[in-house]
Amino acid sequence: MKLRIIVTLKSGVLDPQGKAIQHALGSLGFAGVADVRAGKLFELDVADDTSDQAIDDMCRKLLANTVIENYRVEKLA
Amino acid sequence: MKLRIIVTLKSGVLDPQGKAIQHALGSLGFAGVADVRAGKLFELDVADDTSDQAIDDMCRKLLANTVIENYRVEKLA
Repeated sequence: MKLRIIVTLKSGVLDPQGKAIQHALGSLGFAGVADVRAGKLFELDVADDTSDQAIDDMCRKLLANTVIENYRVEKLA
Repeated sequence: MKLRIIVTLKSGVLDPQGKAIQHALGSLGFAGVADVRAGKLFELDVADDTSDQAIDDMCRKLLANTVIENYRVEKLA
C-alpha cells in the first residue's frame, strides 16, 4: 500500500524557510507571491494490512512534530 | 490562487533521509515498511493572473533541482 504523508506547519507557527523562498522569488522577478509555506512529504510503501492506527502512530511518533505541525495521510493505492 | 508544489527525488537517486526514516520506523516496531522516500512540499499563494509558464519557471529556477528532482504543480483554488 502506497501512502503519501503531508506534514505542514500549523498556521501561526513562523516559517522562516517559506519566508526566505518568498523573498527569493521576489528577487528573481516573480511578482505577486503573497505567501509561501514549506512542508514535508513522505511517500511510504507499507504492507497492505497496516492499520490506520499504526499509520497514525508512525506520524505521531516519528514523521510529524504534532506540537507545531499538522499531518495528513493520503492512500494512493 | 493557491498552489501546492510537490518536489520528489527522481527514482534511482539515493535518498538517505528516506532510508533513515525507514530504519527508524523499523526500530520503533512498525513492521512491513518496504520503502520510504522523502520529498518537499511548498504551498504558494500567488496572484490569480500568474501564468503557468511563470509557475514552471519558479519551480525550475528555485524550488526544484531538476537534475535530481521531479516537481508537480497542483492548483488548489
